Amino acid sequence: MSCNLRLLISCPDRKGLIAALSSFIAMHDGNILSADQYVSDSGTFFMRLEIEGEGFGLARDEFAGAFAPLARRHDMDWRLSHTDTPKRMAILVSRYDHCLIDLLWRWDSGELEAEIPLVVSNHPDLASRAEIYGIPFHHLPLTKETKAEQEEKVVNLLREHKVDLVVLARYMQILTPTFVGAYPGRIINIHHSFLPAFAGADPYRRAHERGVKTIGATAHYVTEELDAGPIIHQDVVHVTHRDTVEDLVRVGREVERRVLARAVRWHLEDRILVDGNRTVVFE
Amino acid sequence: MSCNLRLLISCPDRKGLIAALSSFIAMHDGNILSADQYVSDSGTFFMRLEIEGEGFGLARDEFAGAFAPLARRHDMDWRLSHTDTPKRMAILVSRYDHCLIDLLWRWDSGELEAEIPLVVSNHPDLASRAEIYGIPFHHLPLTKETKAEQEEKVVNLLREHKVDLVVLARYMQILTPTFVGAYPGRIINIHHSFLPAFAGADPYRRAHERGVKTIGATAHYVTEELDAGPIIHQDVVHVTHRDTVEDLVRVGREVERRVLARAVRWHLEDRILVDGNRTVVFE
Amino acid sequence: MSCNLRLLISCPDRKGLIAALSSFIAMHDGNILSADQYVSDSGTFFMRLEIEGEGFGLARDEFAGAFAPLARRHDMDWRLSHTDTPKRMAILVSRYDHCLIDLLWRWDSGELEAEIPLVVSNHPDLASRAEIYGIPFHHLPLTKETKAEQEEKVVNLLREHKVDLVVLARYMQILTPTFVGAYPGRIINIHHSFLPAFAGADPYRRAHERGVKTIGATAHYVTEELDAGPIIHQDVVHVTHRDTVEDLVRVGREVERRVLARAVRWHLEDRILVDGNRTVVFE
Amino acid sequence: MSCNLRLLISCPDRKGLIAALSSFIAMHDGNILSADQYVSDSGTFFMRLEIEGEGFGLARDEFAGAFAPLARRHDMDWRLSHTDTPKRMAILVSRYDHCLIDLLWRWDSGELEAEIPLVVSNHPDLASRAEIYGIPFHHLPLTKETKAEQEEKVVNLLREHKVDLVVLARYMQILTPTFVGAYPGRIINIHHSFLPAFAGADPYRRAHERGVKTIGATAHYVTEELDAGPIIHQDVVHVTHRDTVEDLVRVGREVERRVLARAVRWHLEDRILVDGNRTVVFE
Repeated sequence: MSCNLRLLISCPDRKGLIAALSSFIAMHDGNILSADQYVSDSGTFFMRLEIEGEGFGLARDEFAGAFAPLARRHDMDWRLSHTDTPKRMAILVSRYDHCLIDLLWRWDSGELEAEIPLVVSNHPDLASRAEIYGIPFHHLPLTKETKAEQEEKVVNLLREHKVDLVVLARYMQILTPTFVGAYPGRIINIHHSFLPAFAGADPYRRAHERGVKTIGATAHYVTEELDAGPIIHQDVVHVTHRDTVEDLVRVGREVERRVLARAVRWHLEDRILVDGNRTVVFE
Repeated sequence: MSCNLRLLISCPDRKGLIAALSSFIAMHDGNILSADQYVSDSGTFFMRLEIEGEGFGLARDEFAGAFAPLARRHDMDWRLSHTDTPKRMAILVSRYDHCLIDLLWRWDSGELEAEIPLVVSNHPDLASRAEIYGIPFHHLPLTKETKAEQEEKVVNLLREHKVDLVVLARYMQILTPTFVGAYPGRIINIHHSFLPAFAGADPYRRAHERGVKTIGATAHYVTEELDAGPIIHQDVVHVTHRDTVEDLVRVGREVERRVLARAVRWHLEDRILVDGNRTVVFE
Repeated sequence: MSCNLRLLISCPDRKGLIAALSSFIAMHDGNILSADQYVSDSGTFFMRLEIEGEGFGLARDEFAGAFAPLARRHDMDWRLSHTDTPKRMAILVSRYDHCLIDLLWRWDSGELEAEIPLVVSNHPDLASRAEIYGIPFHHLPLTKETKAEQEEKVVNLLREHKVDLVVLARYMQILTPTFVGAYPGRIINIHHSFLPAFAGADPYRRAHERGVKTIGATAHYVTEELDAGPIIHQDVVHVTHRDTVEDLVRVGREVERRVLARAVRWHLEDRILVDGNRTVVFE
Repeated sequence: MSCNLRLLISCPDRKGLIAALSSFIAMHDGNILSADQYVSDSGTFFMRLEIEGEGFGLARDEFAGAFAPLARRHDMDWRLSHTDTPKRMAILVSRYDHCLIDLLWRWDSGELEAEIPLVVSNHPDLASRAEIYGIPFHHLPLTKETKAEQEEKVVNLLREHKVDLVVLARYMQILTPTFVGAYPGRIINIHHSFLPAFAGADPYRRAHERGVKTIGATAHYVTEELDAGPIIHQDVVHVTHRDTVEDLVRVGREVERRVLARAVRWHLEDRILVDGNRTVVFE
């Protein structure tokens, strides 16, 4: 498989940006495979370009130098990724297995462009689920007293394994600001409600009490404020008065795993840009 | 069309209730067209029976007398309706026309078993929308000072027209406890968010600010507490970062009218029972 | 409201097309409001550009001349539209009113950028539905013998009113190849099944007989072969064993009107390109 | 967990059936946990009763004798199952793993009331997927010449393991009439299209060629005619012009596994009755 490039850009909107960017690519003999663009209400320009690697005239170590003047002129934030260098993704879990199993199955099926150097858990239960795919499982148990210490170990592990993306696949611990600050826009959580409804603990029980007729799940980037980060994807299912809390948990699992998997996939394919507390998703 | 009967029952659960009820019907030569039953977590038994009118041995004025002893023995709350006596439904609107037009079209198409003796509004704008279907339109303008007075006029109108069901089809006024108390479990409102998210004013703007990826609508019975009554139906649509607040308003209209129409239909067909702050819906 | 431009292009794919097009716009001081692009499996490049009218350096009558050399060099099929010149849309109906009412309501609400110079029907029933919005209604009755003649009259009416788009809103007549040939890619039909299932007559009855658990609707461009043209949009709803054919008709109406309205909206906003027997839809 | 009973009945409709059935249960001190009933267009009465085992006055070996006279009088087809005796389910697979993995995960999570004595495949690939859950995997390879022989081996294995339900989880072989006849109404297949569209081979490729905007999956009971048996459940997902055949395969997997799992669940919970070529599903 040949290697393609993905260029993500955001900058203040002005005339001629698409021309400038596409001409830069054309000048270096690049073939644009796909182009998506969006201008937010607040006047920020976002663009995602996928460029064919074959025939592109800029070598990997030449791109930044060649692109810098253009980027500087337009105040661009930008990042480049190469499809032959998948992101390194760590999965953090506790005891619920559905999101983990689903992510690993998709990864094994080739749906997720990632390396998964490790799975980390505060419980030992799911070790075999990771190991069947040959992925090392790290059990770092946790008590109230050892929480700070355990989290430090986790962060060290992530650093050691050069992790790019942290996926909280029903990880039942609230991360400290330090952890969150170490991976800005690179921690994805799945919350088992359609946010902003039922943020916080025990959403299915609260949904049942309120008597809602749909339940949902929300994948979002983690920020310091609990369940308040930029939303990447949401979906819901219909429920009825017959559904007990246990039924909500069961049908909710299906939405959770689907919503999380899609958010992770989009992140791995560089389809998401953060715009304040909102996300731009180039599907 | 022959007249069928619908019997709605709730009572403390115990053994033999279905046998007692269906035997009562059989004893009077009744044919059960459909039977739905549910027992809530808290041990309340709910049942809906649809009985063929033709051949049923109890005359209309005999039913209550014949049924009373059974109902008393089991502490039943019950109500009976006849399909040849559609409910009398009033629609209250302000300026948005989509829910009104949709309800009237469905009514005209035979989807809604109701008489609509009147449409009431605090604005004159939608008069022609009601009048094209031959339905009287009452314009009762409203200022801060005249609110109490206007509401009294509305309630009087509803009484005068022997209204059974009040539908708030995007009626932009909060009802007083007096109004609400006069029609318990008989006022249906459509709220333009998936409750409990974005209760109160301006949900689309707030949804846009929060960056949600689904918006929704909720039909619920009105109680004293704003947007907190028993939910009848909810649905959502997916939105993206490209959708402006105006786009949310536009696609939201589609969900609002659909969700409201379905809730109204269920109510008119006696498919809804209230269970505390939840609804039992026998679809 | 200022006038913007929409440029739709298709041509053989090659390197540098986006650069060429966006540079052409930039050269004439144009601001690109949105850009969508797609390359099909067969190597055709499709693009939709929305350009701000204000500040654009090419006058309306200058564009073609300025753009021609570029278009020629790349073998482009292209068309340009201006947002201040809405398309002229005719609606053809028979007796079912739901699609007509829905389209007219949306048009009245500002959802559809169109002029509607006329509604044509082979039945008189829906005249008042058009006339409430001030739209002329033409009743052209039809018998087996007069079919050819009536259709000619319809086509003449459409020509006379300079119609750009013909919408068959449950028009229960099969158009002749002559009619279809007069409006290639400009006749939208709503078929009441999820094509290719249940093409042809009586899809709801056949769906009921087959015992399907979802029914749907399909909006497509009309071609000579019945129900076989390029599909623009489809959607479905779940049904159960309890749903009679009449129930399918009722819930189907809801999908039909929604699917048709969306397809019409996309066409009016120049979001659809035809790619053989498939459509490219830039939502 | 106590053992409850599920009674499924179908018979010609007449007055008094619900009374007769519920009185029979009440007479033996039974508590009805749930009751669902339906009368088809053709006048067949269907009922599902769930009866609390605790306190029920008929011992397991007494039920048939006590119920026979009532059943005979009303020409009832009936079957009884006990929740402490889960059905024995065999899963047949070829090489695609998604349906198998999903079923096994759900089974392990307690979503599926079944014993799974074996997984059978004509390929060795998925052995580890079954074995991780401790389920014996039988590899019975197959050539054109050995097909009859292999199938006989499969049927013998199923008999030997007293299998009640056969699930074809993307099993890429057409069963012979003999096999099908041995398990009437007890073989569930997942077909990767929304039937009746794209019955037969290669539905995703054909869907792509036709340019549909939704793809789906259908779970149905297997009958002699290919992909023509009674439909249990169907669902769809939206796709766009950007989706290649490979993308359809990928998103299709998600619908397939979800639709199959739901159908299997309903069957295991005795929620499905066959009504000619349609199914009655008491959700």
